[in-house]
Amino acid sequence: MSNTFGTLFRITDFGESHGAAVGGVIDGCPAGLEIDLDFVNEELRRRAPSHDELSTERHEPDSVKFLSGIRDNKTLGTPIAFLVMNRDVKADSTNNQVIKPSHASFVYMEKYGHEDNYGSGRASARQTVCRVVAGAIAKLLLKRYGIEITSALAAPLRPCPPDDTIGAKVRVSVSGVPTGLGEPVYDKLDARLAYAMLSINAAKGFELGAGFHAADMLGSEYNDRQTSGFEFLSNNDGGVQAGISNGQEIFFTVAFKPIPTLRRPQQTIDFNGQPAVYEGNSRNDRCVYPRVLPVVEAMTALVLADFLLQRNANQI
Amino acid sequence: MSNTFGTLFRITDFGESHGAAVGGVIDGCPAGLEIDLDFVNEELRRRAPSHDELSTERHEPDSVKFLSGIRDNKTLGTPIAFLVMNRDVKADSTNNQVIKPSHASFVYMEKYGHEDNYGSGRASARQTVCRVVAGAIAKLLLKRYGIEITSALAAPLRPCPPDDTIGAKVRVSVSGVPTGLGEPVYDKLDARLAYAMLSINAAKGFELGAGFHAADMLGSEYNDRQTSGFEFLSNNDGGVQAGISNGQEIFFTVAFKPIPTLRRPQQTIDFNGQPAVYEGNSRNDRCVYPRVLPVVEAMTALVLADFLLQRNANQI
Amino acid sequence: MSNTFGTLFRITDFGESHGAAVGGVIDGCPAGLEIDLDFVNEELRRRAPSHDELSTERHEPDSVKFLSGIRDNKTLGTPIAFLVMNRDVKADSTNNQVIKPSHASFVYMEKYGHEDNYGSGRASARQTVCRVVAGAIAKLLLKRYGIEITSALAAPLRPCPPDDTIGAKVRVSVSGVPTGLGEPVYDKLDARLAYAMLSINAAKGFELGAGFHAADMLGSEYNDRQTSGFEFLSNNDGGVQAGISNGQEIFFTVAFKPIPTLRRPQQTIDFNGQPAVYEGNSRNDRCVYPRVLPVVEAMTALVLADFLLQRNANQI
Amino acid sequence: MSNTFGTLFRITDFGESHGAAVGGVIDGCPAGLEIDLDFVNEELRRRAPSHDELSTERHEPDSVKFLSGIRDNKTLGTPIAFLVMNRDVKADSTNNQVIKPSHASFVYMEKYGHEDNYGSGRASARQTVCRVVAGAIAKLLLKRYGIEITSALAAPLRPCPPDDTIGAKVRVSVSGVPTGLGEPVYDKLDARLAYAMLSINAAKGFELGAGFHAADMLGSEYNDRQTSGFEFLSNNDGGVQAGISNGQEIFFTVAFKPIPTLRRPQQTIDFNGQPAVYEGNSRNDRCVYPRVLPVVEAMTALVLADFLLQRNANQI
Repeated sequence: MSNTFGTLFRITDFGESHGAAVGGVIDGCPAGLEIDLDFVNEELRRRAPSHDELSTERHEPDSVKFLSGIRDNKTLGTPIAFLVMNRDVKADSTNNQVIKPSHASFVYMEKYGHEDNYGSGRASARQTVCRVVAGAIAKLLLKRYGIEITSALAAPLRPCPPDDTIGAKVRVSVSGVPTGLGEPVYDKLDARLAYAMLSINAAKGFELGAGFHAADMLGSEYNDRQTSGFEFLSNNDGGVQAGISNGQEIFFTVAFKPIPTLRRPQQTIDFNGQPAVYEGNSRNDRCVYPRVLPVVEAMTALVLADFLLQRNANQI
Repeated sequence: MSNTFGTLFRITDFGESHGAAVGGVIDGCPAGLEIDLDFVNEELRRRAPSHDELSTERHEPDSVKFLSGIRDNKTLGTPIAFLVMNRDVKADSTNNQVIKPSHASFVYMEKYGHEDNYGSGRASARQTVCRVVAGAIAKLLLKRYGIEITSALAAPLRPCPPDDTIGAKVRVSVSGVPTGLGEPVYDKLDARLAYAMLSINAAKGFELGAGFHAADMLGSEYNDRQTSGFEFLSNNDGGVQAGISNGQEIFFTVAFKPIPTLRRPQQTIDFNGQPAVYEGNSRNDRCVYPRVLPVVEAMTALVLADFLLQRNANQI
Repeated sequence: MSNTFGTLFRITDFGESHGAAVGGVIDGCPAGLEIDLDFVNEELRRRAPSHDELSTERHEPDSVKFLSGIRDNKTLGTPIAFLVMNRDVKADSTNNQVIKPSHASFVYMEKYGHEDNYGSGRASARQTVCRVVAGAIAKLLLKRYGIEITSALAAPLRPCPPDDTIGAKVRVSVSGVPTGLGEPVYDKLDARLAYAMLSINAAKGFELGAGFHAADMLGSEYNDRQTSGFEFLSNNDGGVQAGISNGQEIFFTVAFKPIPTLRRPQQTIDFNGQPAVYEGNSRNDRCVYPRVLPVVEAMTALVLADFLLQRNANQI
Repeated sequence: MSNTFGTLFRITDFGESHGAAVGGVIDGCPAGLEIDLDFVNEELRRRAPSHDELSTERHEPDSVKFLSGIRDNKTLGTPIAFLVMNRDVKADSTNNQVIKPSHASFVYMEKYGHEDNYGSGRASARQTVCRVVAGAIAKLLLKRYGIEITSALAAPLRPCPPDDTIGAKVRVSVSGVPTGLGEPVYDKLDARLAYAMLSINAAKGFELGAGFHAADMLGSEYNDRQTSGFEFLSNNDGGVQAGISNGQEIFFTVAFKPIPTLRRPQQTIDFNGQPAVYEGNSRNDRCVYPRVLPVVEAMTALVLADFLLQRNANQI
């Protein structure tokens, strides 16, 4: 189900970076949900390049066009389709024949037989526009239940030269989650969150609660004990126990690698395996942060919305 | 799909720790695969408690009984059902009314209305027996393609007092993976691996390749460049680029928290929210290591077998 | 998903007719549902051979053994696994090398490479035991909502010689169905019913409401109009409009072909394509009726239970 | 999965009849398939209204616009998104407040809370445009394997007055299907075909091979016996045995009810349950035939393409 995410609340999306548009279909959103279009566009704006030193200088004033599923600002219960047009699509013909290091060029050639970089346009960060739109709708659903998602840098960025790129760690926090979300065994809440996060371009790691540090803790230090009235005394579990939300804040960290396209040339090979130079791109972002924040929040929202509907399903 | 994992190669399993048996149904395994029963039992033996200082002292000589899908040691193409009987099932009546800290007691009560710990038997590590059996079948399929999975401690365990428990980090390595496994966008190979790993009891973190360290690297340090003939000069990506295997070793690390049940009493509350003591269990493991190794390998095998069939599907 | 049926309320089953047992795993059944074991066994008894002239003379007193998911006669919310042992399994070695006409022999050979009839044991009507058990659980869930399913012969059986077999038409009726079950477009309630019915061994046709007769009706004759208070004046639609239940009785008819194994020899070929005689089996049923009734009801119940949970999911 | 059809070869679509466009996303189509755009448009033309006496007079020269997944007339392996603009969208304000008999008005009100007919635009036959586009891509895949699908009226239409509508029976035939397509038990080839056909607007019945007539046949008359060299002597099974294709022609019949909107007024009620008149529409089709033919073929193609990929998956 490569291009679909979710079981009950689902996004299926499409679009290459060099095509006319990206877009998607949100299926399973209940009828009668109020859609605040300003909010959706604000989420897109958060994903758009700003003018700080880390982000690309391209002007990319995305706006979403809904094609179905919404009338009078309310969901109909039918699939919500949307389009976001691609702008500034000029073929990067200089670099089209070279294999971009740590990017999609080589694996798409191997998997699909593509012989240039146009074929891997689906791996572009442009695709995350679709995640943000779908996530915004999911956030509106969650808001009904008092669930809120925030994110921020988890640690300061390492300083880096201006022609190079850098990784980042992002911390996500969710408040207001009721107990009982998540399914035991394979569809644990944290398992679905890890799935969602690692599906984001450039993500290389995920940890929930105490995370990797938990590996060096004793049970007596780690355990989140409860006192009378079911109050928790700590939250090393990050709000999820045995795969199910326990009502505490859910928090996790996602690690991202440096963006593979530098602002200077890299030695590489071409699609025939011959030495070549990848020229780099001075317009490219230097870090997934801060533009990745609405993306991690969106994927978090999609996971939670799905489990919320799943929980409703079982209330017989 | 709580109790099912996989799309084309699937396991659906069942069984509480205090019931008569655990077991499952493996669906989607192609016909004609030779099943080495000794290998399956050997995998179970690896999961069984040994007599080292970290593992439980219970004698648990598991053996699998296949009920369908295999004849004359070959798969029929029909679903492969199996049972593993539970032994030594004696009701832990002492602790049945207390909420076990950082365990499943509280969340199962909230989700399902269970008012004792029998109801959360599904969250027991006993369930991993099913993963190991299904994973062993998947490994036999992968072996046909020359794919091999190994695992080991990723770092030495922190020393801990004998009545306490400790976390662990496990490193998994996969060799022989062809290029092209994994699907772009949501079903990236690493996203499915993260999903699989975080579904394992007590897992709190996942990182692929350089992982969390990648967040502090520069693009110029990180990028896995290729030379003539498509040879890679490094493997920070851990064998997966843009969600798709690139033919290099796949490696990742999984962090596990300490086992929540200690070998000494813990202050907690009961199912009515009143103060209580959780007595602890001197027969319990003190660390998920080493018994978790066949489990992480099994989940890795299930992910890879699924993508292998998916790849075959697209070869028109 | 060959051996799984359903999205939220699911059955995954296994077992060949000549194996030790058949069984399955029911996943997605909500916690707290009371399980009347006598009812489940009574449903199995309805499926068992009686001693009338149409059914086999084998004694087959099936009883179900639940392995998980139920305690104190209530569902736990965890997967409900069950086994029904096969008895009277004696290898039909006489006929094992011949291709049974209009049966599974030839296609299983082609699909799986099986070179005898043991390999097609999954196509045996024995598998319907699993449908009946899962359907019984689904019926208990439906009963909570006042939904009841009945079935009967739709037309008298054509008289036939004692050594031959005969087809049958079965009519299913469902009362108490609330409005709003079913999903538009692909997962219409009637589409899922057709899917469920045609999955039953020997089924060759399905029609809902006026069915095939509707093809010869005028719109002015056919249309189910409503009067004040939303009362319907007719029910040619069979209780489903635009794929969604309208609160009227749901009724449909399923056509079954004659059982392919006769009580006398048939000229056929063997697995090598050489002329051979299929000896027939005097112990075999002569018609799917009456034993198919609990099977069609069970599949109906599975479809409705699934849509009921789906409806709950969307009640935000 | 309401608005998605298929497991490996999938269509997810969207669009109300009164919105700007309908469209969809085809996911799972292998890379490298040649797309004959003329063929796709020709299929749409077959679905478009002609000027015979049975079809609407609206001019609706649909043409598809592909947004992604195809470059240089070849599939990329990425999702294929498409749009077909709606034209001639003028709000039918006269009839918007009345419940259209045997149509979607009432059930959509009950399910989604819609209080007019705009909300049920998803139930419009306009949606079948999406099926035809996806089906055309599937047909191109099937053509590679020599599989061809045709359809025609199964019986002459009953004569009807000009202001009324009439049902129809359509026969579909598929040649060139290899043996082994279809999965045993729940995902039988014929079960999926029934599912697909009953998902089409106005479909009320499905029968495969001898179909309902089989219910009145003796086994000795019905059975499709084979002679030396595996030649079949008859085809009452309609090319599918035990849910799996046997290499013979696959044929089945689908029954459609009369189109519910007449060309004259009908007595009905409004959304408040008060008596009202549904004015009718002189521009509406009088029969699903002939425009339904490319739709039934498309759904057939989607089912077969899915099973073809599934078969490939299992060839290890």
